[in-house]
Amino acid sequence: MTRAVLTLNAGSSSLKVALFPLDGDTPLASGIADRIGPEATLRLKDAAGAPIVAAGDLTSHTSALAAVIAAFRCQWPGLDLAAIGHRVVHGGIDRTGPEKVTDALLTDLTTLAHFAPLHQPHNLAGIRAAMAAFPGVPQVACFDTAFHRGQPFIADAYALPRALYAEGVRRYGFHGLSYDYIAGVLAKTEPQLGAGRVIVAHLGNGASLCALEQGRSVATTMGFSALDGVPMGTRPGQLDPGVLLYLMDQKGMSATAISDLLYRQSGLLGLSGLSNDMRTLEASDTPEAAEAIDHFALRCQMEIGSMAAALGGIDALVFCGGIGENARHVRSRICARLLWMGIELDPGRNAANARTISADRSHTKVLVIPTNEELVIARAARKAVVAG
Amino acid sequence: MTRAVLTLNAGSSSLKVALFPLDGDTPLASGIADRIGPEATLRLKDAAGAPIVAAGDLTSHTSALAAVIAAFRCQWPGLDLAAIGHRVVHGGIDRTGPEKVTDALLTDLTTLAHFAPLHQPHNLAGIRAAMAAFPGVPQVACFDTAFHRGQPFIADAYALPRALYAEGVRRYGFHGLSYDYIAGVLAKTEPQLGAGRVIVAHLGNGASLCALEQGRSVATTMGFSALDGVPMGTRPGQLDPGVLLYLMDQKGMSATAISDLLYRQSGLLGLSGLSNDMRTLEASDTPEAAEAIDHFALRCQMEIGSMAAALGGIDALVFCGGIGENARHVRSRICARLLWMGIELDPGRNAANARTISADRSHTKVLVIPTNEELVIARAARKAVVAG
Repeated sequence: MTRAVLTLNAGSSSLKVALFPLDGDTPLASGIADRIGPEATLRLKDAAGAPIVAAGDLTSHTSALAAVIAAFRCQWPGLDLAAIGHRVVHGGIDRTGPEKVTDALLTDLTTLAHFAPLHQPHNLAGIRAAMAAFPGVPQVACFDTAFHRGQPFIADAYALPRALYAEGVRRYGFHGLSYDYIAGVLAKTEPQLGAGRVIVAHLGNGASLCALEQGRSVATTMGFSALDGVPMGTRPGQLDPGVLLYLMDQKGMSATAISDLLYRQSGLLGLSGLSNDMRTLEASDTPEAAEAIDHFALRCQMEIGSMAAALGGIDALVFCGGIGENARHVRSRICARLLWMGIELDPGRNAANARTISADRSHTKVLVIPTNEELVIARAARKAVVAG
Repeated sequence: MTRAVLTLNAGSSSLKVALFPLDGDTPLASGIADRIGPEATLRLKDAAGAPIVAAGDLTSHTSALAAVIAAFRCQWPGLDLAAIGHRVVHGGIDRTGPEKVTDALLTDLTTLAHFAPLHQPHNLAGIRAAMAAFPGVPQVACFDTAFHRGQPFIADAYALPRALYAEGVRRYGFHGLSYDYIAGVLAKTEPQLGAGRVIVAHLGNGASLCALEQGRSVATTMGFSALDGVPMGTRPGQLDPGVLLYLMDQKGMSATAISDLLYRQSGLLGLSGLSNDMRTLEASDTPEAAEAIDHFALRCQMEIGSMAAALGGIDALVFCGGIGENARHVRSRICARLLWMGIELDPGRNAANARTISADRSHTKVLVIPTNEELVIARAARKAVVAG
């Protein structure tokens, strides 16, 4: 018998999965069902990276989950799921850590969907599909917002009438599972830095930065929604609210049209007119692609300055996420103008995607740490097994 | 005969005026017509600060201007206006300096009103009133945006589709007349700093910061509108665009209602529930007032970090504007956590509102320089006299 925990990350048209043993941090298997619907694909691989044969109906999250489980059961006939962990974008005002799924929790998370209408419903659909498939198995919800919820009022408030704060208009921040993972690694491997002032740049198709003080979030670039902060694949990052008033008032755009513009047509894609993928932009020789990268790097630099101010200084900068872990030229461009913060890269280490990419003489240490949100979810799910 | 230039700054319900001699930087008179309408007041004073008797119909900008001129003509019977300078909030994409008012310019500035619907129409009403009253006198428009227009694409773009940039959705920045004045003072009195990297914090009822490199703007906290950046008296400063989508989509608010919320009910007023005036908040002992001040200071610190990153470091920090020039406790709170940037105040100098308020050992110099937007306008108007 193979006892394991399953992690699920359900997006609008995707389902990311990983299967962890009860007693280890290396997944037995991982993969993704993408473009769920008539054109869907399902790719699963084992710990060695070898593909796991998988097939089935992929027209819904529920059927895709069934296909994943069927493939896993073929591979591990005695598979016994001890718990299932879920990534949930929004945990609301008070949730500071993972929670076991109950009917009451689900109801509450459903009401929070109006804070994250494009993401929360899909996360909850994933939970409901897993509950239906495994009625007796404990389910645990892990929130992207939870890691930041310890910030005081002056940090998480917007300068708006307080009634809006009371009803939940706050800087929630996201990517909390990633920051939680990085903080855990630092505490273990670089305890001095872990106890210090660290800026983590989680740069992927979604991107944000977080200011860690003694491993706790004191500021982060995303706020109420996943739109704010640094530019992303298709999202703009920081945007003057006056632009939205202009789009509404002068161009007659609806909330739906503006939402589509800001979530799907902006960011690197909008600036480059080419792609939301940093690799495509780096491979392109159009001036628009180069400007998109330069703009991204400048906005990252400025947010690093802002995060350092929230910390009252900086001891280390950590890159993670698809861009942060792999795009050496982008890292080097971001760090090129940060010497005033004591940041100096070692070009060779940076080119090699080494763990430490700063020069020995750099006052501020710069690290590349591959993030692992699935492991944070798996660990939360395991705790639920122990807790019963 | 007293030859002079007049400066006008027309707001929605106010008209600020100053009368400058043709050959000096000290105004002969200055003052404001406030709450233009049935409850209006008009206060004028001479160079010594003595009140100038003024009265008349104050129900419109045109009649208020007539009352101002009548009062000045009583004081200086031979008053001869050589030119009139106007503050205009928006100069559009290409204007990098003041321009003499022509019909073509007025038409162009009118079309720009859709970028600044709450301010531009009042500015233009002031110009039209002055043209009607003084048909032969040259009129000069000075733009709050002009000082920032030298920024490259990567600095003034938002990460939006390029078509929006082309139609004018850019980070314009404002308070340019104030930054222009400060840059001029630095170039004259501290040429080394003037040639270096300086962050100017223009903190008043409206507030923004500007990063100056060799006296030129390379970044500023306000963007497309006057809403962005640090919190202000009644405006929020930096705000996640997702908040506006929430207000539209979930609360059914119109563009007009959101505009009223963001321009008139937010900022220090919204957070404190008490006042938009920093002096009132400092005098209050409510926790809400204290939190509003602390939030303001934190956001200023973070934007100082962001501006420093845009500059690749900082040589000096300059405070100006009503809060920047007078609110010693707020300055001290902002600087308290900026030691990592080499900023250390001298408490005595700061308490005295001295010109240099940093300690001698402070690596970064901190100055208080009273700003003078009127003088920048007056100088532009004088040039028009010389140019004919």
